[in-house]
Amino acid sequence: MKLGMIGLGRMGGNIARRLMRGQHEMVVFDRNTEAVDTLAGEGAIGASSIDDMRAKLDDPEIWWVMLPAGAPTEDTIMEICREAKPGSIVIDGGNTFYKDDIRRAQLLADKGIHYVDVGTSGGVWGLDRGYCMMIGGDKETVDRLDPVFECLAPGLGSIPRTQRADGADPRAEKGYIHAGPPGAGHFVKMVHNGIEYGLMQAYAEGFDILKGKSSEKLPEDQRFDLNLTDIAEVWRRGSVISSWLLDLSASALAKDQKLEQFSGHVADSGEGQWTIDAAMEEAVPAHVLTASLFARYRSRVDHTFGDKMLSAMRFGFGGHVEMPQ
Amino acid sequence: MKLGMIGLGRMGGNIARRLMRGQHEMVVFDRNTEAVDTLAGEGAIGASSIDDMRAKLDDPEIWWVMLPAGAPTEDTIMEICREAKPGSIVIDGGNTFYKDDIRRAQLLADKGIHYVDVGTSGGVWGLDRGYCMMIGGDKETVDRLDPVFECLAPGLGSIPRTQRADGADPRAEKGYIHAGPPGAGHFVKMVHNGIEYGLMQAYAEGFDILKGKSSEKLPEDQRFDLNLTDIAEVWRRGSVISSWLLDLSASALAKDQKLEQFSGHVADSGEGQWTIDAAMEEAVPAHVLTASLFARYRSRVDHTFGDKMLSAMRFGFGGHVEMPQ
Amino acid sequence: MKLGMIGLGRMGGNIARRLMRGQHEMVVFDRNTEAVDTLAGEGAIGASSIDDMRAKLDDPEIWWVMLPAGAPTEDTIMEICREAKPGSIVIDGGNTFYKDDIRRAQLLADKGIHYVDVGTSGGVWGLDRGYCMMIGGDKETVDRLDPVFECLAPGLGSIPRTQRADGADPRAEKGYIHAGPPGAGHFVKMVHNGIEYGLMQAYAEGFDILKGKSSEKLPEDQRFDLNLTDIAEVWRRGSVISSWLLDLSASALAKDQKLEQFSGHVADSGEGQWTIDAAMEEAVPAHVLTASLFARYRSRVDHTFGDKMLSAMRFGFGGHVEMPQ
Amino acid sequence: MKLGMIGLGRMGGNIARRLMRGQHEMVVFDRNTEAVDTLAGEGAIGASSIDDMRAKLDDPEIWWVMLPAGAPTEDTIMEICREAKPGSIVIDGGNTFYKDDIRRAQLLADKGIHYVDVGTSGGVWGLDRGYCMMIGGDKETVDRLDPVFECLAPGLGSIPRTQRADGADPRAEKGYIHAGPPGAGHFVKMVHNGIEYGLMQAYAEGFDILKGKSSEKLPEDQRFDLNLTDIAEVWRRGSVISSWLLDLSASALAKDQKLEQFSGHVADSGEGQWTIDAAMEEAVPAHVLTASLFARYRSRVDHTFGDKMLSAMRFGFGGHVEMPQ
Repeated sequence: MKLGMIGLGRMGGNIARRLMRGQHEMVVFDRNTEAVDTLAGEGAIGASSIDDMRAKLDDPEIWWVMLPAGAPTEDTIMEICREAKPGSIVIDGGNTFYKDDIRRAQLLADKGIHYVDVGTSGGVWGLDRGYCMMIGGDKETVDRLDPVFECLAPGLGSIPRTQRADGADPRAEKGYIHAGPPGAGHFVKMVHNGIEYGLMQAYAEGFDILKGKSSEKLPEDQRFDLNLTDIAEVWRRGSVISSWLLDLSASALAKDQKLEQFSGHVADSGEGQWTIDAAMEEAVPAHVLTASLFARYRSRVDHTFGDKMLSAMRFGFGGHVEMPQ
Repeated sequence: MKLGMIGLGRMGGNIARRLMRGQHEMVVFDRNTEAVDTLAGEGAIGASSIDDMRAKLDDPEIWWVMLPAGAPTEDTIMEICREAKPGSIVIDGGNTFYKDDIRRAQLLADKGIHYVDVGTSGGVWGLDRGYCMMIGGDKETVDRLDPVFECLAPGLGSIPRTQRADGADPRAEKGYIHAGPPGAGHFVKMVHNGIEYGLMQAYAEGFDILKGKSSEKLPEDQRFDLNLTDIAEVWRRGSVISSWLLDLSASALAKDQKLEQFSGHVADSGEGQWTIDAAMEEAVPAHVLTASLFARYRSRVDHTFGDKMLSAMRFGFGGHVEMPQ
Repeated sequence: MKLGMIGLGRMGGNIARRLMRGQHEMVVFDRNTEAVDTLAGEGAIGASSIDDMRAKLDDPEIWWVMLPAGAPTEDTIMEICREAKPGSIVIDGGNTFYKDDIRRAQLLADKGIHYVDVGTSGGVWGLDRGYCMMIGGDKETVDRLDPVFECLAPGLGSIPRTQRADGADPRAEKGYIHAGPPGAGHFVKMVHNGIEYGLMQAYAEGFDILKGKSSEKLPEDQRFDLNLTDIAEVWRRGSVISSWLLDLSASALAKDQKLEQFSGHVADSGEGQWTIDAAMEEAVPAHVLTASLFARYRSRVDHTFGDKMLSAMRFGFGGHVEMPQ
Repeated sequence: MKLGMIGLGRMGGNIARRLMRGQHEMVVFDRNTEAVDTLAGEGAIGASSIDDMRAKLDDPEIWWVMLPAGAPTEDTIMEICREAKPGSIVIDGGNTFYKDDIRRAQLLADKGIHYVDVGTSGGVWGLDRGYCMMIGGDKETVDRLDPVFECLAPGLGSIPRTQRADGADPRAEKGYIHAGPPGAGHFVKMVHNGIEYGLMQAYAEGFDILKGKSSEKLPEDQRFDLNLTDIAEVWRRGSVISSWLLDLSASALAKDQKLEQFSGHVADSGEGQWTIDAAMEEAVPAHVLTASLFARYRSRVDHTFGDKMLSAMRFGFGGHVEMPQ
């Protein structure tokens, strides 16, 4: 198929590449012309603007927008729609809030344009490993795009197959699903990221406890001098907690057991927060996912005002002076 | 009654004073001779050692040990017991782990000595406000010491009375209870402190959110410039969350709304941790009390190793570089 | 002053009463005509509809809306505004989401109507104890309503006064504050309720641990048979954790130490959730306030689907069968 | 080598089998004689008692104890040691608390017996998949047992290799490590299990949120009817959160998307609790691991006493009646 890809960053560029490897035709655009030139050098058709891309796409057009969520994505989609032909498809492959998808899909439907939201996992590894995709949209459009999704997905690979019921949707095993109507794809991806935060924090706390066991704060006869690199590696084989995130941890620790290149300021994107919002809307207790998000907030400040409040109260009732820093 | 007080710090010194105001005779000892001299100047009988104190007490002796939990208390009680006369009473008014009380009480019982554990709340305010006491020990001994406890307790005061059942123990309303056998006093005090951590953290987080609402991190039209001092004060009257800890918070904020004298490194004593241990032994979920303890741990490190693990994983899967500090 | 009170439930009815005691004139309306008749019997002017109330109020009108947040409040205010005279004041005393206040205040300002949001704490006790009020609105309007707020507030009372800076706003000590522009009142009240959840959960967990210490799940020699009623009572005097919520706990336990009349299904109103939303918008870690909210969610389901997932995984890796119920 | 295996349950039986497949000679004992007979039928030498096993082992003896932690393990090891020959080795492959290992290793060292603690992960899958082992003990003994560990471990398998430093211990890649002195093996395994709880709870909460999105508690236009089975499956390929626990989840959901065979009462073993104890000893915040443990406690009670306390307080301040069940 012929697709336009807008946004050639870490994700968009490699998605375009993987599609070209699969014999799809890519028209590409990015405000950074260098990125366009690079892709053009690899076989893509470069475009200098959205209108230029429009001219180079087939009718009806298929657009894949791969931009930061919020204004960049919103503005771009609005510009596309201003003149998109009826029957065209706009795919938002970024990390859009699913309620924005629902709103947008309605808006575009009114103009006869199909909206598809694709939650995409895989990071910088996706080019070779394939992308796990959670897709929202109307059935007909999602089916029409199947060659695109099948090309991007990891496929069965060498992963042991789950024993599934007869008639189970074969796409799940290949690494993509049609999750439901518009918004459903990003909703599932959002929860995926919420879980991701929880998994990461579980490992982080565990390694923190392993590390702390060698701390000089403990009496000498209570310490173990543990090799974190070997521990991460050994857990990759045969243990209950083996995972891809553990693989990455083992690689990082193998490079530097002390992780000295990292300061420990940890960012979060919107999905962690939206997952908690969804949990609250549904009245689902989500202690772990929330605590994981809060740990990231906490990593980015030296002291909370709350900490100072605690000190002030302790001073108030007990005359306690603070611990030396 | 005539009591020996060992340990004349913030708590011990004022307990001795309050007892003297109530016409009890105090023999006092501290390794810091200045503290002994000060109390002696206020009417106490100074002692230069435990043995000297022993000589100055009546038979059977009544000892009140008010020292840091752990070795200082343990060693002192062992020294007292080496020659204490049968029928003597040893009161541990510190923050001893209740399982140590149970062990010690048995040890002392074998020598005919009575052991009483007194969990004491009230901090630097107790001298005037009275001490809330949670007492463990055998009934006869606790009854014998009643004049001491009644003198130290706050009494009915001006606090509105709870409508209690006929025959309810009148001591609770006066501010002291006989909680149960040895260890029960410190157990109840331990949970008291666990709750204290939770209450403090609830206020701390709330004020943090109020404070954050004026942060420059928010878009300007989403900010409120709130007066935290007035908010703490207004909540003291008629609100559901009025409390003594809020009173202290209001005082602290009235002095400096920014709490600049405090760094935010918050200590914890053993009770918070022991409360979580008790919860785990009983399989009681205690999310809030635990999170409160962990917030204190976190307040004392710049970055956890766990934070660095998160950064390392994020770099691994997404090529994410860390946020600027 | 002459005010119209719409909504004569637990809160609205008593606020009207307290205002009448303070010689304010009240016009009252509720869809429940019995409630109107009752208040009319106590000196209020009954109204049969919003339009009837309009006719009975002075020009400009002062309206106090005391209805459930969301549609009931929104629809009522919209109806009031349809014909309200310029210069009129609409007070929302309910538990409205502060962002709705900001939106509404703008809407009403366009019609020359002043909007005031009053976060009100005090519950069923407010009639006698007074109401703690956190007020948002423009300065002129809030000042104009001062006699109303002063009448409703608890006043200095017998509570020990905080040592405050010269020039500090005297209203805070009387139990009401002008927190800021429209929305600020409900924002502060929202955080108040968030803290309330945290405080309540801290006590709940502590008493759960005390209760669990007598459980038959523990070996007999590790149990204490604690009197929870006396413990709640004793903590009211001289302890660090004395509070109004503890007073209520002591009363409830004095009636029935086992709390058998309660099932343990705990509701939550919007404020708890909005407080977490605010924390997330500000990137403030709020472990305790969130865990408190989640404990309420959890109290309302027998088993989460998550619990079943855990069992399914355990069965998967270890062949573990579930614990007997 | 020739080993005695005591305890032929799910773990011990299969470990013996895997060792026999590797040409090791196994003498086996269990109080359940049927289990002994079964293994004997597969080539093991059956023993009728510990003394009988002693007679059938070489000198010095090698014992592998695979029993529930606590008294069963302790008593058995004490019985072995009563007559074990100097130079013998006792391996504790169970889930012993690491501080018990340290104590025991010292006790056995005094008799010239070597103690080795082996934390073993792999569950019912270990027979074919191999066991991940974390080993504590003195270097000489652990080296001597290397053929045993190598046989039990999964080996390199088909898992992509981590780029490790030259000279890195090759055992980690094969699935076993010598973690440190006695106790270190079980310490690392304990943290492994702590992490396991956290990972499981992260998935559980995520699937709970997915499930809740179809709940009738939500307004109809806010629901998605998601296929949890397909979602679990799709995340296995190319996503950031792929893991072995997710594989198990996908299998369980493929059998029954509603997991109706499970009640949701979730057990916990000692390791989760000990991990939190370790975190507290080291002052490491472990919000996620703790919340995961508490979720299991909560899954096993209908209502906590704490929930009732909340209801009692709400009734006290607001006259709130409880939600209908």
